[in-house]
Amino acid sequence: MSLHPELLISLIAGLAALGFAFHLAMKLKSIKIKSKKMEEISKTIQDGAKAFLMREYQTLIFFVIIVAAILSILSFTTDMEPLSPVAFLLGTITSVLAGNIGMRIATASNARAADAASRSMNEGLRVAFSSGSVMGMSVVGLGTIGIVVMYSVTRFAAGYSAEDATTVLFSYGFGASSIALFARVGGGIYTKAADVGADLVGKVEQGIPEDDPRNPATIADNVGDNVGDVAGMGADLFESYVDSIIATMALGAVGVTIAGSDFNEYAIALPLFIAAIGIFSSIVGTFIVKMGKDADVYKVLNFGLYGSSAIMAGLSAITVWMLMDTIDPFWAILAGLLAGIVIGTSTEYYTSEQKRPARRIAEASRSGPATNIIEGLANGMFSTWIPVLAVITAMYVAYEMAGIYGIALSAVGMLSTLGFSLATDAYGPVADNAAGIAEMSGAGEEVRKRCEALDAVGNTTAAMGKGFAIGSAAITALALISVYAEVSGIEPADLSLTENRVMIGLFIGALLPFIFSAMTMGAVGRAAGSMVQEVRRQFREMPGILTGKQKPDYESCIAISTEGALKEMIAPGVMSIVAPIVVGVVLGKAALGGMLAGSIATGFLMAVFLSNAGGSWDNAKKYIEAGNLGGKGTDIHAAAVVGDTVGDPCKDTSGPSLNILIKLMSIVALVFIPLF
Amino acid sequence: MSLHPELLISLIAGLAALGFAFHLAMKLKSIKIKSKKMEEISKTIQDGAKAFLMREYQTLIFFVIIVAAILSILSFTTDMEPLSPVAFLLGTITSVLAGNIGMRIATASNARAADAASRSMNEGLRVAFSSGSVMGMSVVGLGTIGIVVMYSVTRFAAGYSAEDATTVLFSYGFGASSIALFARVGGGIYTKAADVGADLVGKVEQGIPEDDPRNPATIADNVGDNVGDVAGMGADLFESYVDSIIATMALGAVGVTIAGSDFNEYAIALPLFIAAIGIFSSIVGTFIVKMGKDADVYKVLNFGLYGSSAIMAGLSAITVWMLMDTIDPFWAILAGLLAGIVIGTSTEYYTSEQKRPARRIAEASRSGPATNIIEGLANGMFSTWIPVLAVITAMYVAYEMAGIYGIALSAVGMLSTLGFSLATDAYGPVADNAAGIAEMSGAGEEVRKRCEALDAVGNTTAAMGKGFAIGSAAITALALISVYAEVSGIEPADLSLTENRVMIGLFIGALLPFIFSAMTMGAVGRAAGSMVQEVRRQFREMPGILTGKQKPDYESCIAISTEGALKEMIAPGVMSIVAPIVVGVVLGKAALGGMLAGSIATGFLMAVFLSNAGGSWDNAKKYIEAGNLGGKGTDIHAAAVVGDTVGDPCKDTSGPSLNILIKLMSIVALVFIPLF
Repeated sequence: MSLHPELLISLIAGLAALGFAFHLAMKLKSIKIKSKKMEEISKTIQDGAKAFLMREYQTLIFFVIIVAAILSILSFTTDMEPLSPVAFLLGTITSVLAGNIGMRIATASNARAADAASRSMNEGLRVAFSSGSVMGMSVVGLGTIGIVVMYSVTRFAAGYSAEDATTVLFSYGFGASSIALFARVGGGIYTKAADVGADLVGKVEQGIPEDDPRNPATIADNVGDNVGDVAGMGADLFESYVDSIIATMALGAVGVTIAGSDFNEYAIALPLFIAAIGIFSSIVGTFIVKMGKDADVYKVLNFGLYGSSAIMAGLSAITVWMLMDTIDPFWAILAGLLAGIVIGTSTEYYTSEQKRPARRIAEASRSGPATNIIEGLANGMFSTWIPVLAVITAMYVAYEMAGIYGIALSAVGMLSTLGFSLATDAYGPVADNAAGIAEMSGAGEEVRKRCEALDAVGNTTAAMGKGFAIGSAAITALALISVYAEVSGIEPADLSLTENRVMIGLFIGALLPFIFSAMTMGAVGRAAGSMVQEVRRQFREMPGILTGKQKPDYESCIAISTEGALKEMIAPGVMSIVAPIVVGVVLGKAALGGMLAGSIATGFLMAVFLSNAGGSWDNAKKYIEAGNLGGKGTDIHAAAVVGDTVGDPCKDTSGPSLNILIKLMSIVALVFIPLF
Repeated sequence: MSLHPELLISLIAGLAALGFAFHLAMKLKSIKIKSKKMEEISKTIQDGAKAFLMREYQTLIFFVIIVAAILSILSFTTDMEPLSPVAFLLGTITSVLAGNIGMRIATASNARAADAASRSMNEGLRVAFSSGSVMGMSVVGLGTIGIVVMYSVTRFAAGYSAEDATTVLFSYGFGASSIALFARVGGGIYTKAADVGADLVGKVEQGIPEDDPRNPATIADNVGDNVGDVAGMGADLFESYVDSIIATMALGAVGVTIAGSDFNEYAIALPLFIAAIGIFSSIVGTFIVKMGKDADVYKVLNFGLYGSSAIMAGLSAITVWMLMDTIDPFWAILAGLLAGIVIGTSTEYYTSEQKRPARRIAEASRSGPATNIIEGLANGMFSTWIPVLAVITAMYVAYEMAGIYGIALSAVGMLSTLGFSLATDAYGPVADNAAGIAEMSGAGEEVRKRCEALDAVGNTTAAMGKGFAIGSAAITALALISVYAEVSGIEPADLSLTENRVMIGLFIGALLPFIFSAMTMGAVGRAAGSMVQEVRRQFREMPGILTGKQKPDYESCIAISTEGALKEMIAPGVMSIVAPIVVGVVLGKAALGGMLAGSIATGFLMAVFLSNAGGSWDNAKKYIEAGNLGGKGTDIHAAAVVGDTVGDPCKDTSGPSLNILIKLMSIVALVFIPLF
C-alpha cells in the first residue's frame, strides 16, 4: 500500500469538521433559555419534527432493505461489485445522520435564538448562524469521512482496483440520493401542506396573523420549516457534495486525459484535497462571521461567504500547482465556485423585495390575483437565463481546461465551501422559527422586530441557498452524466442526437420533471386540503380557540402533515428510481444517456422557474405587507397572498425536489449499468 | 425532363382545394344576414381584424425586405442557392394569403352563423363549419401549390439537382415560418390583451356578462378571436404542413436508406402524393359532415375526422404499395396520423369540463383561487405524458420502418388531413364570435342558447386542434432536425452527448422556450394592463355606458390591442431568428444541433403544459357557470375566474407561440447552414 496523503488529509479534515460541529453544538446547548413559554413552544416543535423523521425512517427502512437486497442479488448474478450493497447502506446512514443532526440542532436553537434576540440582534444572529454551522459542518464532515472510509475499505482492505473502488462509491452516492429523495419530497410536502393549510384558513378566512398561536396548524408549519428546509435541504446538498466528489474520483480512476497531458497520478486524489481545503476555508469563514461587529447581518454573512471563497480559491490554486503538471484544473474549480455565487446572487435578484421583479409582481396585484400570477409566472420563466448561462460558462471553461474531468471538478469547486454556505442557508429556518416563537410566546414588540429582521435576512440567504442548491444539482448531474458516458462503455457515436433511441430517451427524460412536479404539487394540494378541513373543523367545534380561551389541537394538524407527506412521497420517489432502470433495460444504454440529458435540461430549468416564481410571489407579498401599495388588509394585499400561496409548493416542494430527481436518476443509471 | 406525376397530381389537388374553398366561400357570401344589428357588429369586428392585419403586414414588410436582402447577399457571398430569397418571398406571400383568406371568411361568417342558428342549430353548424373549411382548404391548397411551383421552377427551369432544389425549399419554409411567428405571437398578444382586459374590468369589477356590448373591450376581444385563433392558428399549421413535406422531400433527395432497401426513386415524390391524397380525403370528410343529420354536433365532426383519416390511411397504403418496394413507409404515415388523433384526444380529456381533470380544478376552487391555480398547474404538467408518449411511439415506429425518412413521413401523415382538421378547428372561433354577436345584438334566448351550444363544441374542437398543432409542430421540428443532421455535413459522433458543445447547445436550446414564454406572457400582462386602464377610464368618464345610454369607444380598445401586439411581437420574434444563427456562428454546427434538440424538448413540453393548464382552467370555470358548485356569482366562481384569466395567455399566447419557435429555429438552422 503506497502512501495516500489525500485520504489521510481529507479524513482529518472531515473529523475536524465534525469536531467543530460538536464544539458549536455544545456551546449552543449550554445557553439557557430564559423564557419558559419559548422553551415550551420549541419543545413542541422539536417533538413534532422528531416524530416525523422517526416515522419517515420507519417507512424508509423497508425501502432501504429492499434496495440493499436487490443490490446483493445483483452483485451475485451480474458484474455488480459485491461491496455495493454495503456502500449503499453506508450512504443512507451518513445521509440520515447529517439530516438528523441538522434538524436536532435547528429545533434546539430556535427558542435560544429568539431568547438571545431579546438581548441583542447580534446575539440572535450568532445563535442562529452557529446552528446553521453545525449542520453545514456535519454534512461536509460526514460526507468526506464516508467517502474516505468506503474507498479505503474497498481499495485496500478488499484489494479492488482504483476504478472498481470508485464504482462501488456510486452505490454510496445512491444511498445518499435515496435518502435525499424522500427527505426532500416528504419534507417538502409536509411543510407546504401545513403552511398552505394554515394560511388559507388562518390568514385568508379568519384574518388572524401568521404564526398566531390560535391557529391549530401553526406548530405544524414551524415543524415543517425544520423537516423541509433543514433536513430536506441538508440531505439534498449532502447528496450533491458526495456525488460531485465521487464523479471526479471516478473520472480520475478511468484515466481521462487532463488538459492534453496524460493521466495524472493525482487525478483521483485532487477532489479529496479540494474537499479538505474547502472544509478549512469554511471554518475560517465561520470565524469571519463571528468576528463581524457590523449591525448589517446580511453584510456580515456575505463577508464570510466571499472570505471563505477567496481562501478556497487561493489554496486550491496552490494545491493544483503543486500536485499537477499544470494549473489548468484550477480554472475548472474556480469556474464552479464562481458559477455557484453567480447563481445564488441571481436568485436573490429575481426574488428579493428590494429588487424590481418582485416589486413588479406587487404592482401587478393592483389588477387582482390573476395579473399577480401571470407576472410571477413570467418572472420565474425569465429568471432561468442567468443560472443557465452560469452553468454553461462553467461547463465551457472547465471542459476547455481539463476535459470532462474538469466538469466534475467544477462541481467539486462549487460545493467545496458547502460547510459555510449551508450554514448561511440553514440559518434561515432557525431565524424563521425564532420569529414564530417570538410571536407565539407573546414576546415584546422589540424582540419580535429583531427576530423578524433576522428572518428577513434568512429569507435572502435561503433564496441564495436555494439557487445554489439547484445550480450544484445541475452541475453535479452533468458530472455524473459524463461519468456514465465514460464508464458505461457506449461509443460516443451511439450517444449521437442522430440516433433515434437517444432522441426518444431525451423526450422521456424531458417529460419526467413535469410529471414529477405535477405529482408533488398535486400532493401538496391534497394534503393542504385535508389541513384546511381540519383547521376549519377545530374553529367550528371549539369556538374558544379564536377568543384565546381554548388551546387548539396542534397534534392533529401535525398528524395530517405527517400522514400526507409519507403517503404522497412514495409514488414520485419510486418513479425516479424505476424510470431510469426501465429505460436502460428496455431501450438500452444509449436511450438512457439521452434520458439523463433530457431530464437535466428540463429539470434544471423547471427547478429554477418554480423556485424563483415562488420566491418572488412570497416577497411581493412581503413588500406590500411592509406598507407599500396600501399594505395589509387591502385588495392588493389579498391578491398578493394568492400568489404567495401558489408559490409555496412551487418553491418549497416541487422546485427543490427536482434537484434530487436529476441527480438521483444519473446515479441510478451508474449503479445499474451491469443490468443494461 | 422526365415525367413527374407527383408534381402534376399534387398541383391538381392543390388547385382542387382552392377551387373547393372558393366554391364554399361563394356559397357563404350568398347567404343574406337578416339581422341588421348582427351585420353591423360583424362589420365592426371585420374592420378591426382587417385593420390589425394590415398594420401587421406593414410592420412585417420591413422585416421581409431585410431578410430577403440578407439572403440575397448570402447567396452571392456563400454557398447559399441564388433562388433562396425568391423562395423565401413566395413562402411569406402564400402564408399571408392563407391567413388572410381565413380571417376574411371567418369574419364574414360569424354573423351569418349567428343568424343561421336563429333558424336551426344544424344550419348554424354548417355555416361555421363551411367557414372553417374555406380556411383549411386554402391552407393545404396554397401550401401544396407553393411547394410544387417553387420546386418545379428550381428543378426544371433553373436546372438545379434534386438535392439543391430541396435546399431552396428550406427558404420557402423559412418564409412561411417567419409569417407564422409574427401572426401567432402578434395575434396571441392581441387577443389576450383584449380578453384579459375585458374580463378584469367587465366581469370582475363591474359584474357585467361576457360579450356585453357595454364593455368597450368586447369588440377588440372578438377581433382577437379572428386574428389570434384564425389567422395565427392558420399560419402555424400552414408552416407545419409545408415544413413536413419539405423535410421529407429533402431526406428523399439526399438518398437516405429506406427500410434497408436502397434509395427509392419515389422518395421525393411520396410526400407530394400523400399531400394530394390528404386533400382528397379532407374534401370527402367535409361532405361527411355536411350530410350528417345527427343533432349532436360533436359526433358529426368526429365522424368526419375518423372518416377522412380512414380514407387517408387506406389510400396511402395502396399508394406506398404501388410506388415503393415495400409497405413499410406506410406504417410511418399511419403512426403519424394516429399520433395526431391521440394527442388531440388527450388534450380534450385534460381540458374538457366533462372530464375529471377540469372538474377537479373546479372542486379545488372551493378553497379559493390559490388552490385552483395549484391544481391547474399540476394538471397542465401532468397532461404532458400522453403527447410525449404518442410522439415517441410514432418516432419509434417510423424510424424502425423507414429510418429518419420515416420520421419526416410520419409528420406528413399527421398533417395530411389538415384540410379537414383545420376546418373543425377554425370552426371554433366562428362559433365563438357568433355567440358573442348573438349576445351583443340582443338576439332571443333560444338563438343565444344555440350559439352557445355551438361555441361549447367549438371549444372542444379548438382544444383538440390546439393539441394537434403542438404535436404536429413537435414532429415537424423533429423531422427538420433529422434533415439538419443529414445535410449539415456533421459526423454523427460530433453530435454526441459526450461532446461538450452539444450539451452546451442543449442547455441554450432548453432555455429559449422559457425566455420566449416569459416574454410573450409579460407582453400580455402589459398590454392587458393598458386595456384595463382604458376600460376603467371609459366607465369613469362616460357613466352613460353602464346604463346603456352611451355607446362605448370600441376603437380606442382596438387600437390598444393593435399597438400592444405590434410592439411586443418584435423582441421574441427577433430572438427566435437570431439565436440559432448566433449559436451556429459562434459555437458551431454541433452546438446548434444540440440547441435544436434542447429547444424541441422543453418547447414541446412547455407548449402542452401551458395550453392544457389554460384550457382546463377555462373549462373549470365553464363547469361552474353551468350551475355546478353554486354557479355564477359565488366565491367559488370568482376563484375559477382567476384561473381562467391566468390561463388566457398560457393557452392562447405563450403555449401556441412555442409551436412556431421550435419549428422556426430548425428551419433557420437549415437555411443558414452555409454560414456555419
